Amino acid sequence: MQEQHPAHSLAFLEDAEHGLRVPVTEIALDDSPNGQPNAPLRVYRTAGPGSDPVVGLPAYRASWIAERDDTEAYEGRERNLLDDGRSAVRRGAASAEWKGAKPVPRRAKDGRRVTQMHYARQGVITPEMRYVALRESCDVELVRSEVAAGRAIIPNNINHPESEPMIIGKAFLVKINANIGNSAVTSSIAEEVDKLQWATKWGADTVMDLSTGDDIHTTREWIIRNSPVPIGTVPIYQALEKVNGDASKLTWEIFRDTVIEQCEQGVDYMTIHAGVLLRYVPLTANRVTGIVSRGGSIMAGWCLAHHEENFLYTHFDELCEIFAQYDVAFSLGDGLRPGSTADANDAAQFAELDTLAELTKRAWTYDVQVMVEGPGHIPFHLVRENVERQQELCDGAPFYTLGPLVTDVAPGYDHITSAIGATEIARYGTAMLCYVTPKEHLGLPNKDDVKTGVITYKIAAHSADLAKGHPGAHERDDALSKARFEFRWKDQFSLSLDPATAEAFHDETLPAEPAKTAHFCSMCGPKFCSMRISQDIRNEFGSKEAQEAIVEVTEGMKQKSAEFLAQGGKVYLPETISVGSPE
Amino acid sequence: MQEQHPAHSLAFLEDAEHGLRVPVTEIALDDSPNGQPNAPLRVYRTAGPGSDPVVGLPAYRASWIAERDDTEAYEGRERNLLDDGRSAVRRGAASAEWKGAKPVPRRAKDGRRVTQMHYARQGVITPEMRYVALRESCDVELVRSEVAAGRAIIPNNINHPESEPMIIGKAFLVKINANIGNSAVTSSIAEEVDKLQWATKWGADTVMDLSTGDDIHTTREWIIRNSPVPIGTVPIYQALEKVNGDASKLTWEIFRDTVIEQCEQGVDYMTIHAGVLLRYVPLTANRVTGIVSRGGSIMAGWCLAHHEENFLYTHFDELCEIFAQYDVAFSLGDGLRPGSTADANDAAQFAELDTLAELTKRAWTYDVQVMVEGPGHIPFHLVRENVERQQELCDGAPFYTLGPLVTDVAPGYDHITSAIGATEIARYGTAMLCYVTPKEHLGLPNKDDVKTGVITYKIAAHSADLAKGHPGAHERDDALSKARFEFRWKDQFSLSLDPATAEAFHDETLPAEPAKTAHFCSMCGPKFCSMRISQDIRNEFGSKEAQEAIVEVTEGMKQKSAEFLAQGGKVYLPETISVGSPE
Repeated sequence: MQEQHPAHSLAFLEDAEHGLRVPVTEIALDDSPNGQPNAPLRVYRTAGPGSDPVVGLPAYRASWIAERDDTEAYEGRERNLLDDGRSAVRRGAASAEWKGAKPVPRRAKDGRRVTQMHYARQGVITPEMRYVALRESCDVELVRSEVAAGRAIIPNNINHPESEPMIIGKAFLVKINANIGNSAVTSSIAEEVDKLQWATKWGADTVMDLSTGDDIHTTREWIIRNSPVPIGTVPIYQALEKVNGDASKLTWEIFRDTVIEQCEQGVDYMTIHAGVLLRYVPLTANRVTGIVSRGGSIMAGWCLAHHEENFLYTHFDELCEIFAQYDVAFSLGDGLRPGSTADANDAAQFAELDTLAELTKRAWTYDVQVMVEGPGHIPFHLVRENVERQQELCDGAPFYTLGPLVTDVAPGYDHITSAIGATEIARYGTAMLCYVTPKEHLGLPNKDDVKTGVITYKIAAHSADLAKGHPGAHERDDALSKARFEFRWKDQFSLSLDPATAEAFHDETLPAEPAKTAHFCSMCGPKFCSMRISQDIRNEFGSKEAQEAIVEVTEGMKQKSAEFLAQGGKVYLPETISVGSPE
Repeated sequence: MQEQHPAHSLAFLEDAEHGLRVPVTEIALDDSPNGQPNAPLRVYRTAGPGSDPVVGLPAYRASWIAERDDTEAYEGRERNLLDDGRSAVRRGAASAEWKGAKPVPRRAKDGRRVTQMHYARQGVITPEMRYVALRESCDVELVRSEVAAGRAIIPNNINHPESEPMIIGKAFLVKINANIGNSAVTSSIAEEVDKLQWATKWGADTVMDLSTGDDIHTTREWIIRNSPVPIGTVPIYQALEKVNGDASKLTWEIFRDTVIEQCEQGVDYMTIHAGVLLRYVPLTANRVTGIVSRGGSIMAGWCLAHHEENFLYTHFDELCEIFAQYDVAFSLGDGLRPGSTADANDAAQFAELDTLAELTKRAWTYDVQVMVEGPGHIPFHLVRENVERQQELCDGAPFYTLGPLVTDVAPGYDHITSAIGATEIARYGTAMLCYVTPKEHLGLPNKDDVKTGVITYKIAAHSADLAKGHPGAHERDDALSKARFEFRWKDQFSLSLDPATAEAFHDETLPAEPAKTAHFCSMCGPKFCSMRISQDIRNEFGSKEAQEAIVEVTEGMKQKSAEFLAQGGKVYLPETISVGSPE
């Protein structure tokens, strides 16, 4: 796995007592000009140990799961070519078949629940919780109590032992998700695995595979086996493929079968659009943009075609029973989210939220972990209400929002329009932000778009951490600012979220290597740099003595200024104004 | 002047009674699929009529100024080669000398004040005010009263008659400024004029020429003669060049001479760092990033070198007298603004703001228009305090902020980190936002960076207009959203802030021309599109009858759901859970 920068290296936070090591990225720093050394900075790392795509990652958590002795291996659901789509059936095989070791699926022993929430509620502290506490530099009891209360989730399916545990909840660092996945019109399995590794390299905390094209099952297998972060999906997409894209042909049985298929593969959380109730659908008929969630529109179509209630709602308890066997977390989908600022915070959106709150509490009775999805497109002044309402109705269950975009007028720049709303909604308690790329509304993101989306959302998430006063969040800002003030250009680059881009931009104006240590920046040129002047001021006048001297000198001036204030505006009358001479 | 898109055309808002025409961009729209026509949308336009760089623009406002009969032409300050820098003196000429018509400078007749604030306070409604009212679609009395109260400014030097009047104030549309200008290390006069036209084409409401290299005077001449928008400068930069870059050699006389030179050229507003008082300087000595404003550090350096009070402060009344003769507006510089989130809202910053408030009121006694500059680098949760404090202390004088950046960790992406803060600060009343480009902190912006900065700031400004509920602000969003829902791809592109980029991104995934009218988007592929499904729903079930039918059907379900709610969580006890079978 190539490092992001020569000054970056892999280091570990150690919990020797429990034999845990959490990888972090260590950023080496130069000494200050005055000779003072600068301690290396350690930052949160999502890239994982790196893997050969055709081999996959080691089963990092396998022993933890085994030691709990509450799961059993079993012969998984029978292979079904249709899982890979109609073309796979035609070919009699999926293309790019997964060649790596295929783990035997596990599930809970009869009557057991194997969710982190279940353990937390029993007062059990799991290795996953200790790992998370080390990673977040917080007390493990905070992790346990937040998970027990449903205010945080640790998504890790027992069939995805390759993942490094992470936590999603407002008491912890704000997380970001990157969406990848092919569609009927484009892209290959290799590309998707490449996007996965690219996204986690730049800082994606979770990745959702939204594939809707060919080889859906096999693409997911490649992704999960190579993913150090939790993987989320929207099973209805695959289920729809199994009925040839005809929403009206969907059945609970087909959907359940698809969910179990994905549970056995190791999907860590699934978006379930169980809040789209038949009676809510008419509330969207007169919107500017109707229903824009794919899952939401599929279920709305089904409800209306059958004039029956959403089968995801009527079978929700069975879903809870299944999820409890694998520790799959719900991501309760907001199928009726607004698709334009005009439709924000309307009756349809909030009616669904009421139902998502009901379902959250129902899932908790099964000890199943839950997060709730949020919009979407919301004007800036209405953003805050979304998270505060969700937190109140859902008793603090983690909120997971897409943006929101605060204007609709900038397709091509929606990573920016949405990062503005994302920072605002995260500031008030949203736990995870789903990234938006520059291609949103226009096309499928390529590798560059994925990077731009991830970096933009790291900015939003980190800015929200700063605004929340999250412990230690400011350390990277302060280290970079100090490097900037001291003209340690290389440190400025290596401390930035995207060192290569920062350095490339610098070099466009001042290519020469010496310039990287020069005491001026290209904005002002050699002899005209505010930071240099400012540094001279500090050197020359920063001492206590000098400061006292200045204050002395200025005593008289305060007088004068006081007079100015007193006279302010009274001295000069219009008729007495004389024209200053140009000479 | 090339249009931004084939569907865009130049149109005019007419005030026949007063013979005024305000240019707007008219965006032609296709009919909806149901055959309903969509009226063309008219949007605010900053591009001006366009000019041949070597000829310049017509003196649009000359007759308005002449008719007031309160100004006189005079023989301007003598040409001084040093105005163009030492290399011009060496060469005996400025390179790329301005060849277009050189207007004879005008100034107020003896004892007269020719500022829009003066007229407004006298109850006079000027053509400039009518033009602005037409442009903002508001009542002219709102314009007059806000200018009279100092809550808004119409920056237009009588020696820049080429400009199209615009207004900066919180009661009006949020404006954005783009910085251009050469430095000792790079770029030519032609490039800067090109950047000016490029910036106004994409939506810059004002442009600041921050040139610090060669040919400063001549570069500015080219820029002003070609600018349809107000031009701002920081005169201390040029003054410093005249003393060979040695701040300690600056004098009031050299500075005043430079200011008058720029007044005669037609600069519309000038940044004056008169709030950097000697006694405030020590407050910055222990900051993480000291003083980062160039003007601020120059003045701090001067104060400390001489142990005297800032000559911009002690001579402020003379500056007011000069500005009143040309209608130049103050942009009171925040020379002590924080250069890092660590230094935000500190004693130095707020001490200077107190002095800027004092100077604002003093300038008003001369009827001189004033805006106040703001930071900078501010964590998101501290942004609001900045604008509310400024508005209170400065009696509502327009606030003009740079960003602010809400984190320091993303050099290369500071257009984004700052647009987040800019949206927040504009939402609470900041009147103009100074753009930040991706090159901020790293290098000089090229043409692409200028465009990216402008578009990003149009997003921030427009999002704030939406959040403020500014009348009509949502029309463009709604028109684009409707086009999106109806798969009018071409309208979606032409309604966007950057049509070419939106169309290019779309074509990357779906190049074929037919795809632009296809009823699906590339994200989902042909048969799998939420918007198509949603539109089918509307067609099939959107009618009143259908809606009633659905409600009927669901009456029974409400019952069932009520039971679910009542039983919620009580039905299933852990020991009774059975494992759902995979088959």
